[in-house]
Amino acid sequence: MESTRTIVVYLYPGMTALDAIGPYEILRGLPGAVVQFVARQRGPVTVDSTFLRLQADLSCDEVTRADILVVPGGNAPAQMRNPDTLAWLRCLYPTTRWTLSVCTGSLILAAAGILTGGEAATHWSARETLRQFGITPSQARVVRRGNILTAAGVSAGIDAALTLAALECGQETAELMQLFIEYAPQPPFTAGTPETAGPGIVARAEAFLRRDAAP
Amino acid sequence: MESTRTIVVYLYPGMTALDAIGPYEILRGLPGAVVQFVARQRGPVTVDSTFLRLQADLSCDEVTRADILVVPGGNAPAQMRNPDTLAWLRCLYPTTRWTLSVCTGSLILAAAGILTGGEAATHWSARETLRQFGITPSQARVVRRGNILTAAGVSAGIDAALTLAALECGQETAELMQLFIEYAPQPPFTAGTPETAGPGIVARAEAFLRRDAAP
Repeated sequence: MESTRTIVVYLYPGMTALDAIGPYEILRGLPGAVVQFVARQRGPVTVDSTFLRLQADLSCDEVTRADILVVPGGNAPAQMRNPDTLAWLRCLYPTTRWTLSVCTGSLILAAAGILTGGEAATHWSARETLRQFGITPSQARVVRRGNILTAAGVSAGIDAALTLAALECGQETAELMQLFIEYAPQPPFTAGTPETAGPGIVARAEAFLRRDAAP
Repeated sequence: MESTRTIVVYLYPGMTALDAIGPYEILRGLPGAVVQFVARQRGPVTVDSTFLRLQADLSCDEVTRADILVVPGGNAPAQMRNPDTLAWLRCLYPTTRWTLSVCTGSLILAAAGILTGGEAATHWSARETLRQFGITPSQARVVRRGNILTAAGVSAGIDAALTLAALECGQETAELMQLFIEYAPQPPFTAGTPETAGPGIVARAEAFLRRDAAP
């Protein structure tokens, strides 16, 4: 019998769905994986676009430990101001082997005091906010500091989860999941970073983000 | 006022979550996008891992048209044997401008008679099954035939959706969404295709797929 590996994915209103589902689709394949989708309250959680609801099967009150904790980004500011969320993350963190933030999830870890100083990754649009916590925003796609991995925006969670899978279970297991999701990416365009997208696309993306963040 | 663009994402028990969420995260940013998550019945739909439920807000009976239809993969065989699903897809397809299958979703389109002859993409493990429908499995990541795009396994839906976004709204809009999800992938390993993963990893992935498909 293989032992259980508990992976807790935190869900909250206004989160970005792919931030959570990308890492989930890798980590759920680890030997003995049990993935728990957890929110303040049990039930459907509406994501940033308002078009989709992800089901939380457990409430934060029911979850007191995790081997791996995943914190997605999206409407991070509301979480950064929520003392219950921050207290829960602070209690959970010492029980984990690994904590992974995706996108603006790193801001939530910073607000909780789990991520302090040094370098971290976040969504390109949030780099200056990270600086306000005394953390240097990295242009790297994945940054590891001790047992915390921070990923850049949204899709970077897939790369970070593969890195985490290899740290936790070895490279072969990570490669197995890379092959399962057939992750040999071929983006048809090169606009994946603000540096390569150019100022016109960056301005449009910033306007999109403002609309998305509106209530 | 911009006009509405209706994107229908079909959900079913045993589907692979990332197959749907990858394209959704791109297509939901198209101007005027309204994304509808649709299943046989309204309510939560349990995905292949059994760890996650995605909420369907509409039932198939309530949805009679789509500008863009997305059919994910996963437990495709049950859908290929379901006459109600196949009839619904056959009714919906003529109303669409674009239909996108991800992973073994192409098998469902083939079973419905929507995809016939020629080449198509599917999950690497399902290439031979595609052949049984008289369709040549392509090793390309995204195949376009007329108004149907077929993507390879799971993560290929992101690349295909960017291609589709450019066809529907122009390259700049696709680039905007590529930048939003910061899609400048850096897989830490090269095991994303059976050709690059090597036989040991392929054998382990096939065993994983068999376990995943078990009821």
